[in-house]
Amino acid sequence: MTEHIVSAFDAELKELGRKVVEMGGQAERLVADSVLSLIRRDSTMAQRVVLLDATIDHLQREIEDKAVLVIAKRQPMAVDLRDIVATLRISNDLERIGDLAKNVAKRVLAIESEYHPQKLVRGVEHMSDLVLEQMKEVLDAYAGRDAEKAMGVWRKDASVDTMYTSLFRELLTYMMEDPRNISVCTHLLFCAKNIERIGDHSTNVAETVYYMVTGQMITDTRPKADETSETTVAFPPRSVEG
Amino acid sequence: MTEHIVSAFDAELKELGRKVVEMGGQAERLVADSVLSLIRRDSTMAQRVVLLDATIDHLQREIEDKAVLVIAKRQPMAVDLRDIVATLRISNDLERIGDLAKNVAKRVLAIESEYHPQKLVRGVEHMSDLVLEQMKEVLDAYAGRDAEKAMGVWRKDASVDTMYTSLFRELLTYMMEDPRNISVCTHLLFCAKNIERIGDHSTNVAETVYYMVTGQMITDTRPKADETSETTVAFPPRSVEG
Repeated sequence: MTEHIVSAFDAELKELGRKVVEMGGQAERLVADSVLSLIRRDSTMAQRVVLLDATIDHLQREIEDKAVLVIAKRQPMAVDLRDIVATLRISNDLERIGDLAKNVAKRVLAIESEYHPQKLVRGVEHMSDLVLEQMKEVLDAYAGRDAEKAMGVWRKDASVDTMYTSLFRELLTYMMEDPRNISVCTHLLFCAKNIERIGDHSTNVAETVYYMVTGQMITDTRPKADETSETTVAFPPRSVEG
Repeated sequence: MTEHIVSAFDAELKELGRKVVEMGGQAERLVADSVLSLIRRDSTMAQRVVLLDATIDHLQREIEDKAVLVIAKRQPMAVDLRDIVATLRISNDLERIGDLAKNVAKRVLAIESEYHPQKLVRGVEHMSDLVLEQMKEVLDAYAGRDAEKAMGVWRKDASVDTMYTSLFRELLTYMMEDPRNISVCTHLLFCAKNIERIGDHSTNVAETVYYMVTGQMITDTRPKADETSETTVAFPPRSVEG
């Protein structure tokens, strides 16, 4: 390869990286706004989240098209190929995060006229604070090619899952105590599940960044503390530890 | 390109296609078995589904690696590139479908000792019959490069969503009538949601097949009849039409 071609290739890689960072920023904002619209009961904001998800979908297709063209045109060597494949995987996870934020926003619209149990809404907020921090960290890790930071995000996913499991129990208990809350709590349950899954996708991104930087997979077993698919709450409500 | 290279390339494309079909067959089986384990309350079968999901994940990585290598090595022209990108997208959707089936199976394990409201379990079964038919059709469409068949699957997704919406209402109503069912119904709600999402991923595959064969996107607006993120059920329970 001549130097000219090499630097054009470099520029293309950088451009792809910039697009991923841009997409990450947009996904972060959608997640933050979807939860804010829940807390503030702000339908206008929720509607905006629903609409804006399309721009993330669009960015993903753009990144995919571009990445594939770069691979076909440049026949990159192993290390650069890893970089481009990472781009594809991360944009995929970010697209899913956008979808999940959109779904939270739709549920905000569904329950806007109903009574919001503040304690439970706060529970969703706390979870999302942690998940947003994870997203921020992992996008920094991507931008700075920081495998250690990625590993840190990966390790912390278990705390998101723990919060979700405890919120799941609380929501179920709340429904049992007063069936009038079933409809609202069901939507909050799905909101919480969506946010937990946003955490999972951030963990996927962490794995991809680690692989991109080191060429190695994270070999530890993934910390998994969301036990709610195996969790039931007995009726009548026991302690939430039950 | 010499004829020798062309035919090696052809063989690689065919091999990729075979792997996607294999992955599709495995994903179908996991979905079928996860629902069967729910109906039969068969924990052994559910546990097997949870374990087998890993083989689908493995196939996806294999397809991704292979596809990227083929792109880098062969510098394919537009039409072949479309084919390989389709492979990447479809294996992505199939991997997600495997995850969703695994989640259904985990919930089967969670509620194994609880009372199963037969009517609602049947509701999940009916939904999954339709979704499995959609999966079968869309994998046939992929194997036969049949854009019309793919379009048929795409159009039928609305009926899955309609079934889900009605099941969602039923489950909520059931919970309100007897709070002892809240725990089981919550898991059934997530099962139903997972199956509805398997339907969505089949629709994604239909879009990809259509694009792969025709080079065009399906331009109609996607039929969307899952209204549950906007659905609430009032307490005390009204008619399920309410």
